[in-house]
Amino acid sequence: GKSLMANSKYEYVKAFEREQHELAGTWLVVRLDGRGFHRFTTQHDFVHPNDIRGLNLMNACARACMEEFKDICLAYGESDEYSFVLSPDTKFFDRRTSKILSVVVSFFTSNYVHLWPQHIVDDQNQPVRLQYPPQFDARVVCYPSLQHLRDYLSWRQADCHINNLYNTTFWALVHSGKTEAEAERVLRGTFSKDKNEILFSQFGINYNNLPAIFRRGSIFIHHSVAEKLVKVGVTSKTDPTPVERVVVRKRHQIDLLHTDLIGDAFWGEHVDVFPVER
Amino acid sequence: GKSLMANSKYEYVKAFEREQHELAGTWLVVRLDGRGFHRFTTQHDFVHPNDIRGLNLMNACARACMEEFKDICLAYGESDEYSFVLSPDTKFFDRRTSKILSVVVSFFTSNYVHLWPQHIVDDQNQPVRLQYPPQFDARVVCYPSLQHLRDYLSWRQADCHINNLYNTTFWALVHSGKTEAEAERVLRGTFSKDKNEILFSQFGINYNNLPAIFRRGSIFIHHSVAEKLVKVGVTSKTDPTPVERVVVRKRHQIDLLHTDLIGDAFWGEHVDVFPVER
Amino acid sequence: GKSLMANSKYEYVKAFEREQHELAGTWLVVRLDGRGFHRFTTQHDFVHPNDIRGLNLMNACARACMEEFKDICLAYGESDEYSFVLSPDTKFFDRRTSKILSVVVSFFTSNYVHLWPQHIVDDQNQPVRLQYPPQFDARVVCYPSLQHLRDYLSWRQADCHINNLYNTTFWALVHSGKTEAEAERVLRGTFSKDKNEILFSQFGINYNNLPAIFRRGSIFIHHSVAEKLVKVGVTSKTDPTPVERVVVRKRHQIDLLHTDLIGDAFWGEHVDVFPVER
Amino acid sequence: GKSLMANSKYEYVKAFEREQHELAGTWLVVRLDGRGFHRFTTQHDFVHPNDIRGLNLMNACARACMEEFKDICLAYGESDEYSFVLSPDTKFFDRRTSKILSVVVSFFTSNYVHLWPQHIVDDQNQPVRLQYPPQFDARVVCYPSLQHLRDYLSWRQADCHINNLYNTTFWALVHSGKTEAEAERVLRGTFSKDKNEILFSQFGINYNNLPAIFRRGSIFIHHSVAEKLVKVGVTSKTDPTPVERVVVRKRHQIDLLHTDLIGDAFWGEHVDVFPVER
Repeated sequence: GKSLMANSKYEYVKAFEREQHELAGTWLVVRLDGRGFHRFTTQHDFVHPNDIRGLNLMNACARACMEEFKDICLAYGESDEYSFVLSPDTKFFDRRTSKILSVVVSFFTSNYVHLWPQHIVDDQNQPVRLQYPPQFDARVVCYPSLQHLRDYLSWRQADCHINNLYNTTFWALVHSGKTEAEAERVLRGTFSKDKNEILFSQFGINYNNLPAIFRRGSIFIHHSVAEKLVKVGVTSKTDPTPVERVVVRKRHQIDLLHTDLIGDAFWGEHVDVFPVER
Repeated sequence: GKSLMANSKYEYVKAFEREQHELAGTWLVVRLDGRGFHRFTTQHDFVHPNDIRGLNLMNACARACMEEFKDICLAYGESDEYSFVLSPDTKFFDRRTSKILSVVVSFFTSNYVHLWPQHIVDDQNQPVRLQYPPQFDARVVCYPSLQHLRDYLSWRQADCHINNLYNTTFWALVHSGKTEAEAERVLRGTFSKDKNEILFSQFGINYNNLPAIFRRGSIFIHHSVAEKLVKVGVTSKTDPTPVERVVVRKRHQIDLLHTDLIGDAFWGEHVDVFPVER
Repeated sequence: GKSLMANSKYEYVKAFEREQHELAGTWLVVRLDGRGFHRFTTQHDFVHPNDIRGLNLMNACARACMEEFKDICLAYGESDEYSFVLSPDTKFFDRRTSKILSVVVSFFTSNYVHLWPQHIVDDQNQPVRLQYPPQFDARVVCYPSLQHLRDYLSWRQADCHINNLYNTTFWALVHSGKTEAEAERVLRGTFSKDKNEILFSQFGINYNNLPAIFRRGSIFIHHSVAEKLVKVGVTSKTDPTPVERVVVRKRHQIDLLHTDLIGDAFWGEHVDVFPVER
Repeated sequence: GKSLMANSKYEYVKAFEREQHELAGTWLVVRLDGRGFHRFTTQHDFVHPNDIRGLNLMNACARACMEEFKDICLAYGESDEYSFVLSPDTKFFDRRTSKILSVVVSFFTSNYVHLWPQHIVDDQNQPVRLQYPPQFDARVVCYPSLQHLRDYLSWRQADCHINNLYNTTFWALVHSGKTEAEAERVLRGTFSKDKNEILFSQFGINYNNLPAIFRRGSIFIHHSVAEKLVKVGVTSKTDPTPVERVVVRKRHQIDLLHTDLIGDAFWGEHVDVFPVER
């Protein structure tokens, strides 16, 4: 009685809660970034320039998000950032900004801590202790056309390449005995071809032979696989002869790729997910 | 060279990222809620109607947020939800909605998984295995005046009370042998005084004697404590006689309360944090 | 001195002014509607079902807007509403919602009152006195793709047709002696073909022969005309013989059309203004 | 039939129309500004530094807005700008930004053109021809507390004073024979007291004696007047002696003031409209 009345007396404050919806008919991207990951990776002795355990952990979290939130049609990750793409006709949380934003970043973070011990292990394969909980920030952005989305993803993949080329050269110099300040000075004002040259001539590294996950980042995409199963059975009650029958079943899986997103090839292959617009 | 140019070619997509700022001069509340926590708490055998381990875990996460994000001046939690209050003059992330929202919910979730083994333990004090990662959603809401903020918090505390009274009675009935459907039928249409009566007459429970954390939820608030220290030293180079000196030092701490937020008393005590407006 | 300081003391309130920008890369439509135009047109004795003077006045205002705001690439009007279309790459007022909205509706209204005496004249061609100032409301809407924009315009043109067919039949019934209530009853639940039938059998009106401005509304679109001019002059200082020279000059004009917007023909003709998207 | 179906096929585009609401519980200000009024006033030979006809026209439009939109509780105008204030509990158009913005600026503009001939007259009291239609831009801003609103209005009134002092001195110099460039040079870097001194010593003008409408701008506010009426009648059927009765009737009017808004006096007098917040 009284408390219920008390409550209804305060319920007017609901009017202050305003839902914002992302514009219909646009591609949505949720991009999240590790906060303070320079310190975080240092404290946990991540390997430079790329810690494959860290990338695998990020990828495991992204895969978990794609399994949990079926509306995500593509994910692209590099370093400590991940972009999740939702299609223009998604009705995910009725396109409400706060819901989409909070739930994706929360579940990603949750997985990061949960899956940490499986991925961040030492030489003896023992989990490295997580010293403090990490945090990610996130945003939601609308892209009106597929071209805009492609340009967005190209921007991120070009960024991955530029950073990786820089970091690879920088850490090669540092591991060879230079201080970080010296390495920085060497690289100041250099172009891509200069860095490739340093890597090759000084360290015998052919940049293009480095693992694609480092150079191009990681892409998750849904994939329907037609599986052929051979079933054995009888065809009639009177004839007991076993007969083999081929059954085609569609099985859903999530593929991890490290391919180029900038050119047309990828988009040609996945035209079912990313139809050319009218 | 080439890749940098490639990148700058795509950078125009930054124009699609629009920052939204919360209105200056208003109280901000970030409220987060457990998603699918009915299933989550069932799967992990949380105790009904209140699992003190679960509440303590929520509180530990809230305390961590207050320590990490100094702009949070008050936090209020009940069940699987928490509200974080920022003052009207906060410059937290320049009041950008996405940053505030994502970082708070991410860090809270991160702590929830990280601190789980410390809090969710079994009878032998052994950690209960976390079967799958939890997720929280969140929103940011502006309240123009202190009165609106107080009414918001009153709404949440009244909600805590109403739910707790219901749940306490419901589970008392169930634990006494009723099915959940029967218990629901008994409580349908009852008022507070009816539930109090059922608790007292059938189960000997005086509702008001139940722990305040269940009835009123949890409040975190910053607290400056003036600490008196007695320092012993000499006052001059020539006189070696030790002299005692009282030094007052301000020490910051975060207090956990389970008091009433609806009446004026709380606000009178904390008028430094919540000044009456002009 | 003092007053300047006084002013700077208050300037902090500028922080409350937040600019909202319409999403880049989308078609923008400013749609405005007459408010209370039922009463307004009644008071000024507008003719039913269509007052050509009123439509001409609306069109004159729309033309003025297109001449003033070059970013408007198409305008569509029917009854007391007008839609102004801006292209996805418009930088009109940096795409700021308030500016776009206020300036278009203000200038349209301004013209409506200013041009009233030229258009709203009586049988003796004398201006009808404007009894009170009219008002329009307006909104800005984003459409991500050309298809969305076309569907929007199709929606408005279909609306024009539906209303006009209804109103034409309704007023034919009323002018033939029925009361408004009786006419409404006759039309309740009828389909298009029924109304066409009533018009034809009872009033000898072939709906399709009615003026296109009534049936399809009005479209303004920019048009570049290549004008051939014959210039006469001399070709050299020594030879005084006059020579004719044909000069092609582009002249800009704004065309008024009453054609179909729903089919593909219109869009095929204006593919320069409305390019098919990648 | 067909056309209706056609229409419903396109109706999905309504989903692109998103309503934005101004935050509940805040003061709303609609501020509008003349666009290109430097040229506009020059073309129409407005008097410098202040054209009383122009100010009266602005005020007539503001009064019309207050009469039309009862939710406006105060209006403040100076030069070619006007601010309309709506109270924190206004439900005007359900606080929808587009509606509030468009309707106020549209109706104001409409009045400006409509009332022009009454106000902008020449020496022979003949209307000056309006050469082209004016336009206003507008914005809506929220202010969380009365103090913020007061500071906003103080900002505008201080702005009025600063501009007027500058313009009065500037035009006194120009009218005395200086070029505009010379006058500008004289005033560069001067303080209020310097301008007051120039006005007094060179032109015998005591700034404080100038009309308040120039120095402080114009304020419209609602006012309830208690009117006493003496009614004469009989008190019973049997006694025909006429008796006088005093009847008090509340009459609403809109007052135009040119008083100070910065100090407390105004707000003390109008505490019914602008209550001190809890």
